[in-house]
Amino acid sequence: MGEPSIPPRFEPPHRRLMAPGPSTADIRVRQAMAQPVIGHLDPATGQLLNEIQAMLRTVFRTDNVLTFPVSGTGTAGMECALMNVLEPGEVALLVVGGAFAERMVEIASRCGAEVQVIGGEWGRPVPDSEVAAALKEHPDAKIVGVVHAETSTGVLQPLEGIGELCRDHGAMLVVDAVASLGGIPVEVDAWGIDVCYSGSQKCLSVPPGLAPITFSERAVHVRTNRATPMHSFYLDVLPISQYLGSERLYHHTAPISMLYGLHEGLRMVLEEGLDQRWRRHAELGAELLAALQERGFDPYAPEGHRLPEVVCGRLPDWVDDKPMRRRLLDEFGIEVAGGLGDLAGKVWRLGLMGESCTRDNVDAVLSAIDVLAASVRSGVSSDA
Amino acid sequence: MGEPSIPPRFEPPHRRLMAPGPSTADIRVRQAMAQPVIGHLDPATGQLLNEIQAMLRTVFRTDNVLTFPVSGTGTAGMECALMNVLEPGEVALLVVGGAFAERMVEIASRCGAEVQVIGGEWGRPVPDSEVAAALKEHPDAKIVGVVHAETSTGVLQPLEGIGELCRDHGAMLVVDAVASLGGIPVEVDAWGIDVCYSGSQKCLSVPPGLAPITFSERAVHVRTNRATPMHSFYLDVLPISQYLGSERLYHHTAPISMLYGLHEGLRMVLEEGLDQRWRRHAELGAELLAALQERGFDPYAPEGHRLPEVVCGRLPDWVDDKPMRRRLLDEFGIEVAGGLGDLAGKVWRLGLMGESCTRDNVDAVLSAIDVLAASVRSGVSSDA
Repeated sequence: MGEPSIPPRFEPPHRRLMAPGPSTADIRVRQAMAQPVIGHLDPATGQLLNEIQAMLRTVFRTDNVLTFPVSGTGTAGMECALMNVLEPGEVALLVVGGAFAERMVEIASRCGAEVQVIGGEWGRPVPDSEVAAALKEHPDAKIVGVVHAETSTGVLQPLEGIGELCRDHGAMLVVDAVASLGGIPVEVDAWGIDVCYSGSQKCLSVPPGLAPITFSERAVHVRTNRATPMHSFYLDVLPISQYLGSERLYHHTAPISMLYGLHEGLRMVLEEGLDQRWRRHAELGAELLAALQERGFDPYAPEGHRLPEVVCGRLPDWVDDKPMRRRLLDEFGIEVAGGLGDLAGKVWRLGLMGESCTRDNVDAVLSAIDVLAASVRSGVSSDA
Repeated sequence: MGEPSIPPRFEPPHRRLMAPGPSTADIRVRQAMAQPVIGHLDPATGQLLNEIQAMLRTVFRTDNVLTFPVSGTGTAGMECALMNVLEPGEVALLVVGGAFAERMVEIASRCGAEVQVIGGEWGRPVPDSEVAAALKEHPDAKIVGVVHAETSTGVLQPLEGIGELCRDHGAMLVVDAVASLGGIPVEVDAWGIDVCYSGSQKCLSVPPGLAPITFSERAVHVRTNRATPMHSFYLDVLPISQYLGSERLYHHTAPISMLYGLHEGLRMVLEEGLDQRWRRHAELGAELLAALQERGFDPYAPEGHRLPEVVCGRLPDWVDDKPMRRRLLDEFGIEVAGGLGDLAGKVWRLGLMGESCTRDNVDAVLSAIDVLAASVRSGVSSDA
């Protein structure tokens, strides 16, 4: 161990965040996070949480009482959703079309559920008819799980019809809205969603570390009446709701600085208004997509199912994935993401989320790509 | 749902944080958290994580490779520790003397372990002989779990002898150092601890939201060779170590702003030096304890087992718990904590942790208590 060496103060490099998360956090949000710490049982923290819960209900478009930020990132939100409602041996029908749906499969399996996959091909949205067929085949299904905006493929999975199918069959609808909430319409109550979770660091533009989540009364009832203990105590919504309620019973120490940031970030979302926010994402996303197509990046997602906030394009021949992403980062300060799993080396994923969704960012990434293309044409390699 | 109402910007009240966590976060730490966000796969984030890991090893006094901050609060750290090493049906011997040890029982039970309690009385430290007897009675014990600094009682549980007993019996030692790391000596390698976790918001004086943790090679081996799947994916140290390692495989989005804060907080810990930090806590804690005794607050913990950073005193007759804590908060801006569980209404718990451990805070809380005492003597009640 020896003498401790103390590294210098860390100063992050300047980046345009154009991967599908984390997105840019506005200075208002970051300054809110720098405010002095107060305790988790302070009455002022209670007020802060009440206001965050109310704003989250507005953003989720729900009246659900149990609506709050999980003290962890989006994956913790996914675990919170699945662990609370699934018991060992129960059937989970999971719509799979990408890496994050496969993560749902992984987590539901760890819950001991019997997982049945609907679909399974990356990049293909699943039609309602396949969900209906699966529900017919598995009438005892406890949940249908769906990723709304699949970050790994840029595919939008429509949800409108699935909620009704679930109600008809007595199954609950669990939705991953990590990459959609605050960027494109998410209608928890209107679409009949029972559990919906997101992440702070995508279209809400708050730093990563919180996972907003909402549970319908039916979902709370299911948790309350479990026959087997829930695996996690940290993510158990029963004691959490006793902390969120008027009792304010201690459960865990609320991550107060992150809550400050989320509060300010949600204020910014509501100041802009959801309609305007959805329009901004739709317009700039379409523009970026069209410009990338002109440059030879074919969209991976089928027409009509393309997310505006996660543009996933197949790489044209001239693009050398890793070295060119490194050049974007080093020479232009632009972060974009490569492909996950089998798509590694085959696609780039560009995020236009929340505060990162600006015309300036669209212009910057396109002109950087044009510079890369020109340097390839003129034979200047990245190693030159 | 109707028209969304937007609350005003949240401004936390000024508080002296003298509950046993969260503690005061220095302006350096809070300003670090306000820095611009960068991505979890950015090379600069890799460097940040490497430096945090190295500093955590120094603070934990260990050479363990797998040393990192869990992306959650202290309770997430407890789950990460227990969930990774315990499988259903395995025997967990848990030393119990307060609320947080009981939480270990709760979580180990949810892991499916067969829990055997050693001790069990709140406030009584357990002698090594009882641990030895339990290990003899349960030769198949997988772990011995101990809370080092029990926040609910102010009791210090000595660990020096327990590690050796564990080695002799082939059991692993899992230690909760949430309220001790950075405040009093914690010697992971010298004491033979296999898994040790803490929280950012106690003696490290970083806002709540991260749980530093370290796993010995033996503990990693146990995780790697599990026969049954681990319940949590989010807290699974196998994929986490692939993200921390040179592969930098994506596991979950690192909570970057919290990491900025932890980096700066650890720099401050090492700048002061662990020896000096331990001395500061020991001296000011002893001073506060003596002054409280003079004022009729009898220490709850037995002599020789009193934590300097969590002073737990039985309430003298003149103290009316809740109204007086409310007066401390409203009139003096001082947060202290009441008792948990059966100790509610019977004790106050005063934290002197990290940046909250100052002579100014000691003086402030004592003079505030003197004002309360004087107002009782003169018959001025809190409702007057």
